[in-house]
Amino acid sequence: MVWQRTQDRQPDQLRSMSFERGFTKFAAGSVLTRCGDTQVLCNVTIRPGVPKFLEGKGQGWLTAEYRMLPGATSQRQEREFLKLSGRTQEIQRLIGRSLRAALDLERLGERTIIVDADVLQADAGTRTTAITGGFVALHDALNPLIEQGELPRSPLRCQVAAISVGLLQAQPMLDLDYIEDVAAEVDLNVVMNDGLGLIEVQGTAESGSFTRNQLTQMLNLAETGIQSLFQLQSQALQVSA
Amino acid sequence: MVWQRTQDRQPDQLRSMSFERGFTKFAAGSVLTRCGDTQVLCNVTIRPGVPKFLEGKGQGWLTAEYRMLPGATSQRQEREFLKLSGRTQEIQRLIGRSLRAALDLERLGERTIIVDADVLQADAGTRTTAITGGFVALHDALNPLIEQGELPRSPLRCQVAAISVGLLQAQPMLDLDYIEDVAAEVDLNVVMNDGLGLIEVQGTAESGSFTRNQLTQMLNLAETGIQSLFQLQSQALQVSA
Amino acid sequence: MVWQRTQDRQPDQLRSMSFERGFTKFAAGSVLTRCGDTQVLCNVTIRPGVPKFLEGKGQGWLTAEYRMLPGATSQRQEREFLKLSGRTQEIQRLIGRSLRAALDLERLGERTIIVDADVLQADAGTRTTAITGGFVALHDALNPLIEQGELPRSPLRCQVAAISVGLLQAQPMLDLDYIEDVAAEVDLNVVMNDGLGLIEVQGTAESGSFTRNQLTQMLNLAETGIQSLFQLQSQALQVSA
Amino acid sequence: MVWQRTQDRQPDQLRSMSFERGFTKFAAGSVLTRCGDTQVLCNVTIRPGVPKFLEGKGQGWLTAEYRMLPGATSQRQEREFLKLSGRTQEIQRLIGRSLRAALDLERLGERTIIVDADVLQADAGTRTTAITGGFVALHDALNPLIEQGELPRSPLRCQVAAISVGLLQAQPMLDLDYIEDVAAEVDLNVVMNDGLGLIEVQGTAESGSFTRNQLTQMLNLAETGIQSLFQLQSQALQVSA
Amino acid sequence: MVWQRTQDRQPDQLRSMSFERGFTKFAAGSVLTRCGDTQVLCNVTIRPGVPKFLEGKGQGWLTAEYRMLPGATSQRQEREFLKLSGRTQEIQRLIGRSLRAALDLERLGERTIIVDADVLQADAGTRTTAITGGFVALHDALNPLIEQGELPRSPLRCQVAAISVGLLQAQPMLDLDYIEDVAAEVDLNVVMNDGLGLIEVQGTAESGSFTRNQLTQMLNLAETGIQSLFQLQSQALQVSA
Amino acid sequence: MVWQRTQDRQPDQLRSMSFERGFTKFAAGSVLTRCGDTQVLCNVTIRPGVPKFLEGKGQGWLTAEYRMLPGATSQRQEREFLKLSGRTQEIQRLIGRSLRAALDLERLGERTIIVDADVLQADAGTRTTAITGGFVALHDALNPLIEQGELPRSPLRCQVAAISVGLLQAQPMLDLDYIEDVAAEVDLNVVMNDGLGLIEVQGTAESGSFTRNQLTQMLNLAETGIQSLFQLQSQALQVSA
Repeated sequence: MVWQRTQDRQPDQLRSMSFERGFTKFAAGSVLTRCGDTQVLCNVTIRPGVPKFLEGKGQGWLTAEYRMLPGATSQRQEREFLKLSGRTQEIQRLIGRSLRAALDLERLGERTIIVDADVLQADAGTRTTAITGGFVALHDALNPLIEQGELPRSPLRCQVAAISVGLLQAQPMLDLDYIEDVAAEVDLNVVMNDGLGLIEVQGTAESGSFTRNQLTQMLNLAETGIQSLFQLQSQALQVSA
Repeated sequence: MVWQRTQDRQPDQLRSMSFERGFTKFAAGSVLTRCGDTQVLCNVTIRPGVPKFLEGKGQGWLTAEYRMLPGATSQRQEREFLKLSGRTQEIQRLIGRSLRAALDLERLGERTIIVDADVLQADAGTRTTAITGGFVALHDALNPLIEQGELPRSPLRCQVAAISVGLLQAQPMLDLDYIEDVAAEVDLNVVMNDGLGLIEVQGTAESGSFTRNQLTQMLNLAETGIQSLFQLQSQALQVSA
Repeated sequence: MVWQRTQDRQPDQLRSMSFERGFTKFAAGSVLTRCGDTQVLCNVTIRPGVPKFLEGKGQGWLTAEYRMLPGATSQRQEREFLKLSGRTQEIQRLIGRSLRAALDLERLGERTIIVDADVLQADAGTRTTAITGGFVALHDALNPLIEQGELPRSPLRCQVAAISVGLLQAQPMLDLDYIEDVAAEVDLNVVMNDGLGLIEVQGTAESGSFTRNQLTQMLNLAETGIQSLFQLQSQALQVSA
Repeated sequence: MVWQRTQDRQPDQLRSMSFERGFTKFAAGSVLTRCGDTQVLCNVTIRPGVPKFLEGKGQGWLTAEYRMLPGATSQRQEREFLKLSGRTQEIQRLIGRSLRAALDLERLGERTIIVDADVLQADAGTRTTAITGGFVALHDALNPLIEQGELPRSPLRCQVAAISVGLLQAQPMLDLDYIEDVAAEVDLNVVMNDGLGLIEVQGTAESGSFTRNQLTQMLNLAETGIQSLFQLQSQALQVSA
Repeated sequence: MVWQRTQDRQPDQLRSMSFERGFTKFAAGSVLTRCGDTQVLCNVTIRPGVPKFLEGKGQGWLTAEYRMLPGATSQRQEREFLKLSGRTQEIQRLIGRSLRAALDLERLGERTIIVDADVLQADAGTRTTAITGGFVALHDALNPLIEQGELPRSPLRCQVAAISVGLLQAQPMLDLDYIEDVAAEVDLNVVMNDGLGLIEVQGTAESGSFTRNQLTQMLNLAETGIQSLFQLQSQALQVSA
Repeated sequence: MVWQRTQDRQPDQLRSMSFERGFTKFAAGSVLTRCGDTQVLCNVTIRPGVPKFLEGKGQGWLTAEYRMLPGATSQRQEREFLKLSGRTQEIQRLIGRSLRAALDLERLGERTIIVDADVLQADAGTRTTAITGGFVALHDALNPLIEQGELPRSPLRCQVAAISVGLLQAQPMLDLDYIEDVAAEVDLNVVMNDGLGLIEVQGTAESGSFTRNQLTQMLNLAETGIQSLFQLQSQALQVSA
């Protein structure tokens, strides 16, 4: 038996993806990123100075915060208040590492970039959407500094995007929605740069295990999907914000 | 000297106000409320059961949570994590009290309503915008329960709206924006129902003090402004969501 | 039907109020303030320096902390430990704002005043008693600095006092005790200076709403009551501590 | 050289000690206990039920909370909020153990007694004052239950009192005040019952060490002092509260 | 240039690995696991009942806690107290997921297994050592239940082990020690079962990115290493504890 | 009736005590201390600088942290995370005070010593074992500084050791194990230096009270036991680590 995707989506087909730049007015970069019914508001702030452990090293830093609004899921979720769940911490560390990989931190200079990824609506894939959309917001936040000459050249050294892949009834599927995510035997998140170098690979068997061969198939799907994401990012950025 | 408002706004003139209903898909009621450059996402959840102190009393409850996204202001603000500021607590208690005043809690039955007011963009008046928009989201969240016959009749007993007034150079002004809020000598928040009954009056002298006469003038302005808000709420609710 | 007050108290009659100055020995100002059965210990500390946000501005600051002892009410209340309730935060912010209104902060110089209001016994009106008694303790704490010439002139620019008013069976009543507070339809707290300027007005409908006319009646009562409080403060301060 | 005590106090002389019963009105037992300039308000609450670990064992429990008001010392101390200091925890555990030793917990039945010891003014000896005064408040809180027949007989099986002793310039001194406490080489707290049985002995060398012989001398002093305290407790309790 | 390993270790050579079973006496399973200079004490507790979200589902659960003793590294590290670092949370979630994959949770029945992995000495590879040694402790903790007939058959369905691999100067190396871990361009952790199925793959580029081909080479190394670990686990378990 | 000790231990007989020096590799001093079935890992770290309150006074400091591993007792205990129990705080303060008594803090200079006492296995007497073993680890951590000439002479001014004594069926017993500890009517912990000076005496009646005479008998037992401990410490330290 083969898993039937909603709206006849093909196993290698991305959900509809869009980037609404300048979504809010006061953040340096602000992109409402939609991937199907998943909506993540990526706000980017740049400020002078670096954390203690980097002081005097002549380089910058990027860190990320990730949260879900309580109403983002059909079952309302409590705000994380006194402590962050392990899931949230893993995700915001992943977003931070992935977007740092897009930066030449020395070219950035002693500045700290904060990427706030707030999930307004969650239908799976929130971490990968945050990375892919966060890159666009990062670009928008850096642009004025380059235009005003504060940065002699862009600290961006590549595009970065991310996608999820899963095994459903032993078949690889690209860009899972919530129903698929729950049903998947294996869940794989892949982050790549536009040279098709791997930045992060995280694969987890939710039940049983998976073979080396299945891993290869899933990575193939991810690579194709991410190539499309790079095109969508480029198109979005060609329009002036 | 007289305070000059941006865009030639008159002392008794509201900022442009709009309600984008159904802004997110999974919350029972979801209204992106805009008041000038202030944007508050009001999500309403209804769930069975009541807090401990109300169990077995045959009535429902409504509570509110209020937060700012970090990128809502030009200066990024840290998330409130280990403790809520006094300001945030005051605001969410005010939102809760004000919207409870719109409800017949016995007609609601043993249900708890949670109003999440998340400020996406802040240009002053976030608490009053949350109340005025929260009412619309509350209406939308209750509607399906009434239509499906779970509630024999609506637990709403009146409309509720709120507005701020300030004294600027001793002159009363309606609906302050951020620049005005910072400059105001007195800050007054007023919540009323559509019978023009007062639900809450909170006036604070930021410097010096104010006279009984000035209080009367400010309340007059607030009353006029809130009457317009009731009309805007009604218009928004006439369109099917 | 008319609400019958205990001990035939008239609607416009304050409870018996007293200030026991020098109640403890080590605090700079220490006043056990009694208002009927409500007892609040107001201790005032003055220390050099100001909070970060005021450094280098040549002015001082005043902040307040408010707590109830666990045995202050007939039902023992837990100490607030890991977080302050919204009620406590609102009250201590109100005390702080109100007593700052009595001060010329520039004349105070770079000093921080801390007002600790600890409720030993609670029969309603604790926040207003803390403000009225806190003023006396503030006066006592500043006096030695003036006498020793550390402050060239007193930073006090006016007296400040506060009182509660309520609507009981639609009739305004001054200075509610606990039984009245629970029964009141509307609860109003008013803070004024001795020029009869309003510093803070906070009115809340506990059920239903109230009219503009009722608000006026309540403010009239408050004004009369606060005038008496100014006399009592003055009398207390004429005796040497 | 011999340590000179203030006001020519003898090495074996207690400070003036008094018990102001019924100090507050709402707590079941409320005693303002003064020992020289140390003032501790001991409020006792009795309520039905016991902690989890004692359920169904047919016995009661007693627990204590100890705090200093911020203005109790000449240098204002911050309130303990997010965590209790080790000192505070040690003291409240000691007060609890000591007063439990005065009780027959089975005769008490499934009730929990809470002793709140709030230090209004601190001149050393606060823990021993809390124990000695806490016993009086405990007595007052239990009395109505006995008089109303809720308890067939008193659960008190003995009197309990406590005192501090120190070594100052190698000489034992009874009931140290703050200046002595700071200067003492050894600090010893002793809790006894009125059969002169030891309940708790805690001796600490602040610098160097002490001999077995010095320990004996200090225990002799403590025993004499505590005998006087038992008399003072008895006198206080003979007067009706 | 090629990376030179300490003690002439080959790129595909594991460090010396040992399992000291019964290391402590009171835990059901207790294995001090040594991998080179890394030492992790794996204690396993089994207790009746399951977490809320699993009640009544007729299955068991396994959860893990991971901590470093402060003296485990040459630079003393503070204990994690008020909050867990993201790193710690990621690791304990990984240990939990990995060891759950060794269990048939239905055969386990409504029991909860807690794996405490406390690092006594850290020279990199603590998480993989915790998984590989945790499996042995898990076996030891389950054994008595099987022997006493409480469990009709073993809930273990496979062996589970884990190893790290890195890229050093673009060359894959097995089982990194601390110096290598710091220098590695890519860090990969792999968890497998004894059918050579993948349970978890986590690869992170610390600088730059890695190719699909390099990923394959690293997975090959990991697979070989883990096969050796299965043999070492089997040998350790053949001896009676 | 007389209490029968396991393995025919005499009332004045210590359990078998050993010090495994250099137990871990990275801490400056690391001693696994065994006292019967109690095992405490004592790790000592020395670092430059002192806490705020000692800055510029030309002296050093020593502080201790005490924890139990969750698997140290037959009933697994939760880790202390958000707050330390009163018991843990009392113990780590006692360890700190006791080992500071072994030091000439001025000779130590502006250094801070941290003693981490982690209980791997608990059969009562963990605090006294931590002190006695902590002294050995302290010696080992200081030695390299003396040998390398960083410290001109050893800051150790005496040996320090500790033991527990109890009353069981009114008879004094030395060095209680867990079963004895639970049954004891009185629990006494004694810390001494090798001049047989008392550093700390803490005696608590768990039920009833104890006489001055019983206290003397218990102190006699403790003194004999501690003399043996000093010999064992000396023997352990004669062997090079």
